[in-house]
Amino acid sequence: MKPYFEKTAILGVGLIGASLSMAIKKQGLSGHVAGYGRTEANLKKAEELSIIDSYELDPLMACEGADLIVFATPVGLFSDIAGKIKHSVKKDALVIDVGSVKGGLVYEMERIFGGRFVGCHPIAGGERSGIEYASAELFRGAKCIITKTENTPSSAINRATGIWEALGSSVDFMSPEEHDRVYALVSHLPHIIAYAIMNTVADGEYLKFSGRGFRDMTRIASSSPELWRDICLLNRDNLLLFMEKFSQNMEKLRLYLKNGDVKALDEAFGRAGALRRGLEG
Amino acid sequence: MKPYFEKTAILGVGLIGASLSMAIKKQGLSGHVAGYGRTEANLKKAEELSIIDSYELDPLMACEGADLIVFATPVGLFSDIAGKIKHSVKKDALVIDVGSVKGGLVYEMERIFGGRFVGCHPIAGGERSGIEYASAELFRGAKCIITKTENTPSSAINRATGIWEALGSSVDFMSPEEHDRVYALVSHLPHIIAYAIMNTVADGEYLKFSGRGFRDMTRIASSSPELWRDICLLNRDNLLLFMEKFSQNMEKLRLYLKNGDVKALDEAFGRAGALRRGLEG
Repeated sequence: MKPYFEKTAILGVGLIGASLSMAIKKQGLSGHVAGYGRTEANLKKAEELSIIDSYELDPLMACEGADLIVFATPVGLFSDIAGKIKHSVKKDALVIDVGSVKGGLVYEMERIFGGRFVGCHPIAGGERSGIEYASAELFRGAKCIITKTENTPSSAINRATGIWEALGSSVDFMSPEEHDRVYALVSHLPHIIAYAIMNTVADGEYLKFSGRGFRDMTRIASSSPELWRDICLLNRDNLLLFMEKFSQNMEKLRLYLKNGDVKALDEAFGRAGALRRGLEG
Repeated sequence: MKPYFEKTAILGVGLIGASLSMAIKKQGLSGHVAGYGRTEANLKKAEELSIIDSYELDPLMACEGADLIVFATPVGLFSDIAGKIKHSVKKDALVIDVGSVKGGLVYEMERIFGGRFVGCHPIAGGERSGIEYASAELFRGAKCIITKTENTPSSAINRATGIWEALGSSVDFMSPEEHDRVYALVSHLPHIIAYAIMNTVADGEYLKFSGRGFRDMTRIASSSPELWRDICLLNRDNLLLFMEKFSQNMEKLRLYLKNGDVKALDEAFGRAGALRRGLEG
């Protein structure tokens, strides 16, 4: 069922926040969308482009009277903003986020907002950032992970699910812990690796000779360093575990190569290739 | 100057060989293109699709009377094929290859073909393989590296350069040694890493939750294992060196993360990001 909100507050008007605002307006899910952010020039531009209907430089003002509040800033800022708005959030409001890491953050948001909070992670946006790339269609055909805890009321989950489905996303449910294990492996680890590759070729001399494979592989290294520093630190334990497993796989390949072990290389490359080709289907 | 060849022999009719044949025919660089390969069904299909004009299952037959011979098989097969054809290659023929690794291979080909051989590496094709992806436009806008040694006559270099430029590529020149250092870093290392990432997520359970970043990053793991096993083994020393440097960069990030060193993470992510964003320009 398509939910409706009198007033939506988008906290953080970057690529995801702006796209969400555009999509919510396009789908008629909200009467008014107010934006909050740290940079007035950006908010002003978003208002001029009708991405948002109004803006505030104080999150408390943006959230005043809102029945949908979306945390779309870098995750490291959630606590601070939540602390500022917690006493004035409406009793029946829905509070969601769009952060790439859940875990402890979801429990912290639950402590502050109780059953009004539902953790959401739309798998969209990639390495781009800023409202110039925003699109009302960003979430169409994408997955959105909704994290459930034993405290999340099913009514809140249903309302949150209704939003994402109205925007064209398909919703999967996980616990915050499962979410963070999964995304440490399929998202946070690849970011770390992309950063490490770029720092390995850091003298830049050789870069101009790179082809499409290299560019595709390292594209996510363009992602916002601030955003990803927060995500990696908040999912540190899972990430360190998978970094260790990845290192073990690199070490295996190093030994096969060093020993000229054709059979082991064929097997390791072949297995990886088959798995990757399976992803295209 | 656009070169012309009475008869071209394409040894290995895969993505690159087939695309090269199509491009050569389209640009009128050759009167006849004969293909050689190990799989008759593939050669037959290439002939039916007019990708090649004729085919042979014996490389000696394919090269008979050819004044342009292109090695486009996996690099591990070059020696064997070169040994089979060496006594019948025309005195004034041009012999090129399209392999991703040069080094010792170039010197071996020079020992066999003398000044007729020019090593070429078109930076095109990516992870796809097979004639179904072949295109006469594959090389347009791409780079092609031509490796020069002190034995390569400038007339041969000019003819080889003429081919690639006629197909729309821009040509850069390197020594075989420099080529292998550069591509160990910007191509062979990323392949090893992509294989290692796939083997790290090998249980497959989590893969379905991956987004575009993961898919872009690991796409090259779909590349032919046979091709890449050969390339990596032939460029082993450079590759092992850069794998070591990459591991050091991963270890740095691991320590920053483990110690919660926000400043060091910001610096390392920021430097990598700036470098990667510079590549888009």
